[in-house]
Amino acid sequence: MKIAVLGTGEVGRALAPALLNLHHAVSVGTRDPEETFHSNETFRELLNQYPGIRLASFAEALRGADIVVNALYGPACVEILSQLSAALDSRIIIDISSPFNGRIEGAILNPVNTDSLGEQVQRALPNVRVVKTLNTMAAVVMTEPGIVGTADHSVFLSGNSADAKETVTELLYSLGWSDIVDLGPISTSRASEMLLRMWIDLYKALGTDLFGFRVVRPAKSDPHTLSVP
Amino acid sequence: MKIAVLGTGEVGRALAPALLNLHHAVSVGTRDPEETFHSNETFRELLNQYPGIRLASFAEALRGADIVVNALYGPACVEILSQLSAALDSRIIIDISSPFNGRIEGAILNPVNTDSLGEQVQRALPNVRVVKTLNTMAAVVMTEPGIVGTADHSVFLSGNSADAKETVTELLYSLGWSDIVDLGPISTSRASEMLLRMWIDLYKALGTDLFGFRVVRPAKSDPHTLSVP
Repeated sequence: MKIAVLGTGEVGRALAPALLNLHHAVSVGTRDPEETFHSNETFRELLNQYPGIRLASFAEALRGADIVVNALYGPACVEILSQLSAALDSRIIIDISSPFNGRIEGAILNPVNTDSLGEQVQRALPNVRVVKTLNTMAAVVMTEPGIVGTADHSVFLSGNSADAKETVTELLYSLGWSDIVDLGPISTSRASEMLLRMWIDLYKALGTDLFGFRVVRPAKSDPHTLSVP
Repeated sequence: MKIAVLGTGEVGRALAPALLNLHHAVSVGTRDPEETFHSNETFRELLNQYPGIRLASFAEALRGADIVVNALYGPACVEILSQLSAALDSRIIIDISSPFNGRIEGAILNPVNTDSLGEQVQRALPNVRVVKTLNTMAAVVMTEPGIVGTADHSVFLSGNSADAKETVTELLYSLGWSDIVDLGPISTSRASEMLLRMWIDLYKALGTDLFGFRVVRPAKSDPHTLSVP
């Protein structure tokens, strides 16, 4: 598949090489590729290590993409994606964003409780098929779930399109995820986004970001729940 | 120990017999014991089944109690506990309350994000030692964690008093909990209270309340983390 990863931060830098290693064609979209190449040293090193990754403007990265990954800075992502509305068309957006400025101390989530970034992206772009996922763990865990436990922790899905969730489920399996929990429509993004509060306090209490959440259910229930309520 | 359980709802009705079975002296406090006895049929049946449980007014139930369980209706609990300030003195309060009116559809949490019920109770009663715990699972799971998986899911602790958390940890072990995660000070109640949003969406997606959350960590980390950051 052709995958456009939007954003050159920690999440983009984890996803792009992992997807390339799975033999996808990966473009990373950024506002100004020249600027990113010259000022983002970590990303330049990544390009040296993985020459298959193409760095491009947002619009160029999106051209022909089957799947778009929203790895943009949470507080800015709805505005950026809205400006790309025509190029995004009816694509699948894997939305990994968090309603959070990245500062661990005194973290306040926004939006929260009565709205979520997943819903905001879906409202701003009614034609795209947003699937909220991978937003409940550190970037390094997203692409290598086996780094924690025996990969026996859960990843959540929220979205209104069953087809899009099916496609994303396959991609998650290929990344090594086995316990994929479909929470329901995009409004359930509130649940996974609000889990960030627990993630932050666990990160501080445990002194590591190498952990995950497992939904422990009775043995009889299907471990790969794909119910869309 | 003498334990006062405040509240005759689902949580109180689960905790009171479980604590009695562990050979504690259990009083259940309610605003008007006569009224509860006559109008709360479920609770009257519980008293028939467990004659060792004493139903009393809030103030009477608190007399001599070593530990107080806040199993009151979330939106009302801060006001009720504030009125009992003198009787509560410097006791340990196990706070199981949720910032929630109990309606699953369209659930909105309040307080959330910038405050929590755990913090509100601690601020209203500076002398008590609040330990937020057991607020992230169904009542039936609180007292019988083995009903889900192999009891290999986690229960969280938040509180400012290390001594109080130690006492509550022992009580949780005696109830069958083995993975007790200390999140830190009472402000981390926000994390466990906000997990309710995930609990609600999982309850709807899975069609059961028999599930729990496990914090999966690398093998090397201590499973019974008791760090107070």
